[in-house]
Amino acid sequence: MVENPIRIVFVLFPGVTQLDFTGPHQVFSSLPNAEVRLASVTGEPIESQGIVFGGLRRLAEIQACDVICVPGGSGTTDNAIADAELLAQIRRLAAEARYVTSVCTGSLVLGAAGLLRGKRAACHWAWRDLLTLFGAIPDPGRVVSDGNIVTGGGVTAGIDFALTLVSEMVSPKTAQSIQLQLEYAPAPPFEAGDPERAPRDIRDAVDRRLDTVAARRRAAVEAAAARLPG
Amino acid sequence: MVENPIRIVFVLFPGVTQLDFTGPHQVFSSLPNAEVRLASVTGEPIESQGIVFGGLRRLAEIQACDVICVPGGSGTTDNAIADAELLAQIRRLAAEARYVTSVCTGSLVLGAAGLLRGKRAACHWAWRDLLTLFGAIPDPGRVVSDGNIVTGGGVTAGIDFALTLVSEMVSPKTAQSIQLQLEYAPAPPFEAGDPERAPRDIRDAVDRRLDTVAARRRAAVEAAAARLPG
Repeated sequence: MVENPIRIVFVLFPGVTQLDFTGPHQVFSSLPNAEVRLASVTGEPIESQGIVFGGLRRLAEIQACDVICVPGGSGTTDNAIADAELLAQIRRLAAEARYVTSVCTGSLVLGAAGLLRGKRAACHWAWRDLLTLFGAIPDPGRVVSDGNIVTGGGVTAGIDFALTLVSEMVSPKTAQSIQLQLEYAPAPPFEAGDPERAPRDIRDAVDRRLDTVAARRRAAVEAAAARLPG
Repeated sequence: MVENPIRIVFVLFPGVTQLDFTGPHQVFSSLPNAEVRLASVTGEPIESQGIVFGGLRRLAEIQACDVICVPGGSGTTDNAIADAELLAQIRRLAAEARYVTSVCTGSLVLGAAGLLRGKRAACHWAWRDLLTLFGAIPDPGRVVSDGNIVTGGGVTAGIDFALTLVSEMVSPKTAQSIQLQLEYAPAPPFEAGDPERAPRDIRDAVDRRLDTVAARRRAAVEAAAARLPG
């Protein structure tokens, strides 16, 4: 059990994928007594796929939190993992937080902050192997716990991640009540959400698209890993 | 097939539930050639559960769209169904749209706009019966199509709704590619998202909470239904 109010901070940055945090935010903000905040280095509005998120806090203004959550997106490797101030703020909050968490490629940012050495962690399936460059152990689970590190897989895994964390932080009954309120009885129209079960041609098409950015993302992760103190 | 670019408009209002539109927005904005917009009557920022959405368009400025989508939330009955200007804008855009859609209690707003008479429609499970007051036929499906009206159930159903619509508007392969990119292979930690399968005590607890607002919501819907031209 975490004491009330549960203070939850999502760490935003340019190029964040919005559903990575809006999904779990909806779950956490359904708690009767939670303070859920969006924060970034500057506090300026951040646009994600055409949605403008305003009213952000500055990370430096947040004294402490119970849960720090880093979402993913192309901005993880394009921006976040090379942003010394962002990584320093994440390390500061993580040091006191009860749970250090991420969704999707947000785990690469935790890795760049030096928080995943020797830890099992989830990530978006396409970029999971990059975790090894930060000394983490890639885990194909949709929600992966290792000590106080709780990480979710790609994008929509954030909803499963948040319900899992609510169950642990508060109670399984509370998590189930939120699940019912959000009518979370998913019925995807296809069996294509998992790289192992997706039709081969779909997987190939997505792989081809991701290949166009793979070298750049890997180079960014290698550079960030090289900056980690040994 | 809808011609490119596919113009999609989400209609926002005070008291909207953010995941109702951020979920489908993530799906639609993954299309290679879509213009996805958030719009409201005034264009002023709208806060939803602590998230501030800025950069909104004014509905009156939007000439036409291919898909109009109305999300749900407590603000449907508290605000939207009594907002004559909002309903007029929805009617105007719906008249030319290829698809008229909603997520969660957004279908109550479509009903208040007079767009659901004799139509089958989905809604959040707890408020579905209210659709009858607008002459609609409540349907327990998670994604329900009736002519060009496509409606999703509660909150998280918006993701299934959007993938279904992409499959119809563009192609099943495109929908599957997006599903794989979003790693949408959901694995809820509990079997509690459906009122028929949720544990009895969980259902009872949620019912008790919703009962506190049920009379007010019904009265608002009755008033809105009375304003519909016969």
